[in-house]
Amino acid sequence: MAGSTYGTIFKITTWGESHGKALGVVIDGCPAGLELNEADIQVYLNRRKPGQSNITTPRKEADEVEILSGVFEGKTTGAPISLMVRNTSQISKDYSDIASYYRPGHADYTFDAKYGFRDYRGGGRSSGRETIGRVSAGAIACKILKQLGIEVMAYTHSIGPIKIDEKCFEKEAILETKTAMPDRNADQNAVLYLENAMKNLDSVGGVMECRITGVPAGIGDPVFEKLDANLAKAMMSIGAVKAVEIGDGTCVSQSTGSTNNDSFCMENGQITKKTNHSGGILGGISDGSPIIIRAHVKPTPSIFSTQQTVNQAGEEIDINIKGRHDPIIVPRAVVVMESMAAITLLDAMMVNMSAKLESLERFYK
Amino acid sequence: MAGSTYGTIFKITTWGESHGKALGVVIDGCPAGLELNEADIQVYLNRRKPGQSNITTPRKEADEVEILSGVFEGKTTGAPISLMVRNTSQISKDYSDIASYYRPGHADYTFDAKYGFRDYRGGGRSSGRETIGRVSAGAIACKILKQLGIEVMAYTHSIGPIKIDEKCFEKEAILETKTAMPDRNADQNAVLYLENAMKNLDSVGGVMECRITGVPAGIGDPVFEKLDANLAKAMMSIGAVKAVEIGDGTCVSQSTGSTNNDSFCMENGQITKKTNHSGGILGGISDGSPIIIRAHVKPTPSIFSTQQTVNQAGEEIDINIKGRHDPIIVPRAVVVMESMAAITLLDAMMVNMSAKLESLERFYK
Amino acid sequence: MAGSTYGTIFKITTWGESHGKALGVVIDGCPAGLELNEADIQVYLNRRKPGQSNITTPRKEADEVEILSGVFEGKTTGAPISLMVRNTSQISKDYSDIASYYRPGHADYTFDAKYGFRDYRGGGRSSGRETIGRVSAGAIACKILKQLGIEVMAYTHSIGPIKIDEKCFEKEAILETKTAMPDRNADQNAVLYLENAMKNLDSVGGVMECRITGVPAGIGDPVFEKLDANLAKAMMSIGAVKAVEIGDGTCVSQSTGSTNNDSFCMENGQITKKTNHSGGILGGISDGSPIIIRAHVKPTPSIFSTQQTVNQAGEEIDINIKGRHDPIIVPRAVVVMESMAAITLLDAMMVNMSAKLESLERFYK
Amino acid sequence: MAGSTYGTIFKITTWGESHGKALGVVIDGCPAGLELNEADIQVYLNRRKPGQSNITTPRKEADEVEILSGVFEGKTTGAPISLMVRNTSQISKDYSDIASYYRPGHADYTFDAKYGFRDYRGGGRSSGRETIGRVSAGAIACKILKQLGIEVMAYTHSIGPIKIDEKCFEKEAILETKTAMPDRNADQNAVLYLENAMKNLDSVGGVMECRITGVPAGIGDPVFEKLDANLAKAMMSIGAVKAVEIGDGTCVSQSTGSTNNDSFCMENGQITKKTNHSGGILGGISDGSPIIIRAHVKPTPSIFSTQQTVNQAGEEIDINIKGRHDPIIVPRAVVVMESMAAITLLDAMMVNMSAKLESLERFYK
Repeated sequence: MAGSTYGTIFKITTWGESHGKALGVVIDGCPAGLELNEADIQVYLNRRKPGQSNITTPRKEADEVEILSGVFEGKTTGAPISLMVRNTSQISKDYSDIASYYRPGHADYTFDAKYGFRDYRGGGRSSGRETIGRVSAGAIACKILKQLGIEVMAYTHSIGPIKIDEKCFEKEAILETKTAMPDRNADQNAVLYLENAMKNLDSVGGVMECRITGVPAGIGDPVFEKLDANLAKAMMSIGAVKAVEIGDGTCVSQSTGSTNNDSFCMENGQITKKTNHSGGILGGISDGSPIIIRAHVKPTPSIFSTQQTVNQAGEEIDINIKGRHDPIIVPRAVVVMESMAAITLLDAMMVNMSAKLESLERFYK
Repeated sequence: MAGSTYGTIFKITTWGESHGKALGVVIDGCPAGLELNEADIQVYLNRRKPGQSNITTPRKEADEVEILSGVFEGKTTGAPISLMVRNTSQISKDYSDIASYYRPGHADYTFDAKYGFRDYRGGGRSSGRETIGRVSAGAIACKILKQLGIEVMAYTHSIGPIKIDEKCFEKEAILETKTAMPDRNADQNAVLYLENAMKNLDSVGGVMECRITGVPAGIGDPVFEKLDANLAKAMMSIGAVKAVEIGDGTCVSQSTGSTNNDSFCMENGQITKKTNHSGGILGGISDGSPIIIRAHVKPTPSIFSTQQTVNQAGEEIDINIKGRHDPIIVPRAVVVMESMAAITLLDAMMVNMSAKLESLERFYK
Repeated sequence: MAGSTYGTIFKITTWGESHGKALGVVIDGCPAGLELNEADIQVYLNRRKPGQSNITTPRKEADEVEILSGVFEGKTTGAPISLMVRNTSQISKDYSDIASYYRPGHADYTFDAKYGFRDYRGGGRSSGRETIGRVSAGAIACKILKQLGIEVMAYTHSIGPIKIDEKCFEKEAILETKTAMPDRNADQNAVLYLENAMKNLDSVGGVMECRITGVPAGIGDPVFEKLDANLAKAMMSIGAVKAVEIGDGTCVSQSTGSTNNDSFCMENGQITKKTNHSGGILGGISDGSPIIIRAHVKPTPSIFSTQQTVNQAGEEIDINIKGRHDPIIVPRAVVVMESMAAITLLDAMMVNMSAKLESLERFYK
Repeated sequence: MAGSTYGTIFKITTWGESHGKALGVVIDGCPAGLELNEADIQVYLNRRKPGQSNITTPRKEADEVEILSGVFEGKTTGAPISLMVRNTSQISKDYSDIASYYRPGHADYTFDAKYGFRDYRGGGRSSGRETIGRVSAGAIACKILKQLGIEVMAYTHSIGPIKIDEKCFEKEAILETKTAMPDRNADQNAVLYLENAMKNLDSVGGVMECRITGVPAGIGDPVFEKLDANLAKAMMSIGAVKAVEIGDGTCVSQSTGSTNNDSFCMENGQITKKTNHSGGILGGISDGSPIIIRAHVKPTPSIFSTQQTVNQAGEEIDINIKGRHDPIIVPRAVVVMESMAAITLLDAMMVNMSAKLESLERFYK
């Protein structure tokens, strides 16, 4: 339980450091019979790839994925799928300084406290590059969910004070804007805002949102394995996320029962809800409405202005971080959110298949 | 993985329904040698007991705990500790109506969707009484943590628009006020606010906060088993919680790196931080500062005003819920938050013991 | 991971000591919709109940089971099923001596080494009474498997040198003979053999066998979660079991490939095997033939002749064990074997439901 | 839970097929601070490498391991260690025939039954090459255990009827004989026996034994996570193992209590046992004596004589298997046994560190 494995049946194990030889993931428990090739995964990895615009790190990485096992004649076999991405653009000398001190907002100090020393090059295991494994696995989970009629879609909801306008929501824009916002106007304002922050040698935070549609009612387990509990864990496990909301989220604490309760109603002979304050989950189990999740992301801790900290000798010092860093984490993290949501949901759906005795009887008789 | 078991080494399994014979928990992996008796647990259970003031449900339950195993001559033996609380005040006829329809904001519909039918009496397994098991286990986790110099303290942070004032923080007030607020003035205002809501046959939401002090740096695992990720799961697994924040939480999304980064500094020869925006966790690992968690709780879904819903026959109907219900969940849930935080932290500390080779060598040689 | 929880989806947690207040089990993940009452479970518990013949301990326990949760209107709800059996015939004074020394063949010393002290009354948690929880859960697993067309049947295969004769196999005899042998003639010889051992103040060992019929091909996962690997763990987790065999078991080491390989053939349009040396499992996955397991059980360590040991003060002493003990463990353990086999197989079948993409598609579309 | 992950804290995940691009393992939870390089692992891999004598398959594979992550400046960092071995000598055309039929004694049929189709090249995931990941991880576990004073040593105990003679036990011989026997005389006889079997186009079975010395008393958890239960699972998870024994193993079923009980005694002020029938484990917990495990391995199912089977079209056919195969599995599997034993024991030792409250207090205060 050293923390690099996730999931009960659809189980992923990620590995790799920012400046090591490679990063990767092993996906165990992927159902047999799924058509899969590198391109299915590459399209997701490209969404988190660095160096794609002036508001991301200039580090250039091809991030090309290789399938090493688990696929035969174009289809998954049920055996573990091993995926690997070689690092190609490590410039470790950028990091020689930071070996000796603790960068504010980073995990340098806590890794040293836990393990006694650390791979300091680019944050080592605590780097954002760790998410390459998550996104590779997420691409597969999303492909399976799509075949079950379920769409998982994450996007940038706000950058600093700039929020998207629901009325301007344009799905295609997510993949086309620099910020991964689904609102082209908000995107333009956000880019200006980010450029200004970069001039100030500073960084900014933002909010990611994920909508999952097509989920049948009944997914998730009561008590500890609630679907929203696992989604919250999945989101908070993404570096830099400091808050997670489901549905109306923080607003519920200032609402009343008469407002917050969603009335059930009938629509085309199906039970549905008039509103969706619940964000698609009641009692930890999906209620058939879209699942809505928001994750609040802190500003990139690597900033170029002078900061105060201490070094391993216990001296208070001033530091100036070098290297290549994003002024905001959100746009490249959106696909990580989408991946973690998909992995979590798919796993819950697999576990759910034996909830009723009649399901077992139908399957085995 | 039906969701009633939680934890890796300090592992709890809860059981029981609102109107069944009893509720309980089995705690497996509790270290041997802890002095333990029923009173240690009862004091925690009393904090979530119903019927203690005019702002909680009038249902009267003694909620007396019985230790059935795992304790010998006043000490834990390392064997599973089985704890049970008998239900004594079930009035199931209050619930005969709700067998046929789906209460808005409740898990009636989702349980039916998942399992095909449900124990409808008082919400069955999705009742707040399910937390009796969590709190019983939490009392034990808190006792162990205390012996390690760690204090876990949860309280009501706000009720509707009424927030506590940090300047008026009085620890003793948490156990003495009706609302579990640590600010007696805010408590009075909140009680008035709640009485008004009750007159309107409505319910309200609120925020719980938990502070954990004395945690050494280095607890939690990178990637998926981050300490904050597990705390987020723990909190979101509590019924009615819809958002979880760590440290500055949602505020980080509107902050900048230069503000949000906590500078490290020296204090009495120890590394510490000048501020605590991080809420005591960096990169998923404790950083030695107090851990700060907030959970946003929705208004009690059971309200006495007329609501619209559908029944199992697929008809849209108006309903009036009877029974005995709290106008707010927060004050009695505060001890549940405290329990889940303690269980999660203690388990992470146990897992952490083999993080370094030198720890293994010191232990076994 | 303190060891009292077992299973991935059909997950059981047992608790209780020989001379504590009660023993029990929580079964989480039992599918909803199973008809279940106390009698279904009691019939299994009665097979392991003490005091039923001259070849078992004279300790009298009713071992009456109470269902505390998870069943509503006669059916399982999907919520955890809590089952409890109160201890009624504890005579703890029998054990006051053994507090200070380590009985040979028992877990007294190892518990002390691990936990620092122990509940010495009747072996505490390491008593055979621990299996009450397993058998209670096993009764439920067996009932579900039966509804899927699968029969799990364990029996005594040999006692000391007395083996059953396959040609005399009579299924009904299992529940009727004192020894749980399916061969009435062997049973008579075995009883004589046991009576003689008792006269000599000694105890004897034996072999249990379990046959599972009706298992579809395809159950079990490759590599670490092989069906036979989990069955081996399940069997070896039963106190006193020192060896486990699948199919031809130990004989394979002296066989040749041409003899040991089972040829596939067709029978009524179905693929089957001409022989069953494999014991129904190939590559860790069921092959459709009956699953055959054998477990070798050591003689009861509690014997009435004088033994040498050491006490906690580190002195070598002679001891004479008192109390009430079986001269052989096997006849009452047969139902434990049956239970563990059923629980293990059912869990594997639940996990198996998402092995193919087309199964997911059929379930969710 | 698709079966490729093993362990609670020291957790390994293996991947790869016989004729895929590569095979490997991710080791998560390895303590930080262990000196580690490729040579540490290669020496173990070389013990299972094919093509080393006339009694193993002529397939030539360098089986060179590459460390991809988790090691920095020559030491483990606590991050997951990813290890990979590229396949270089695949001759897939050898296997084109077997795509259409089911080889007796192999997992061809059961994989098809479970997953709908299979990677038939060289057995795919069910090939013995799967153990490359286990052995790579085992090398690390063994290195750690050695630093804790624990030696894990496996060897060939018998091949067909040829058994080692305890009096001729020579530890060095294990790595020097073709058969991995510690008795050079038995080795010579076994080689003759094997050469004869090969002439007959047949294969033979054998027994592996593992001795673990230096294990402190107290390791392993009661009930389901007994040390012997997990060792049994570990052994039975190795392909072709059909029986597992601990200590006296199958002999206990014909023994008596007075013989089988090991008397405790004092030696140099330490508690120990006069005999070791228990094989170092009592009540599922190590008792301080050497741990003794035996695993019975079936004959290689790939034999060159004509066999009967069925094809996917449901026709009964005669087949002649081609390819390159070992006439016996045991000599190359001995290091797999050693690896699985080490991984299982190390994991249990890590879990054990929080068994006593005083251990937690000593660690954290």
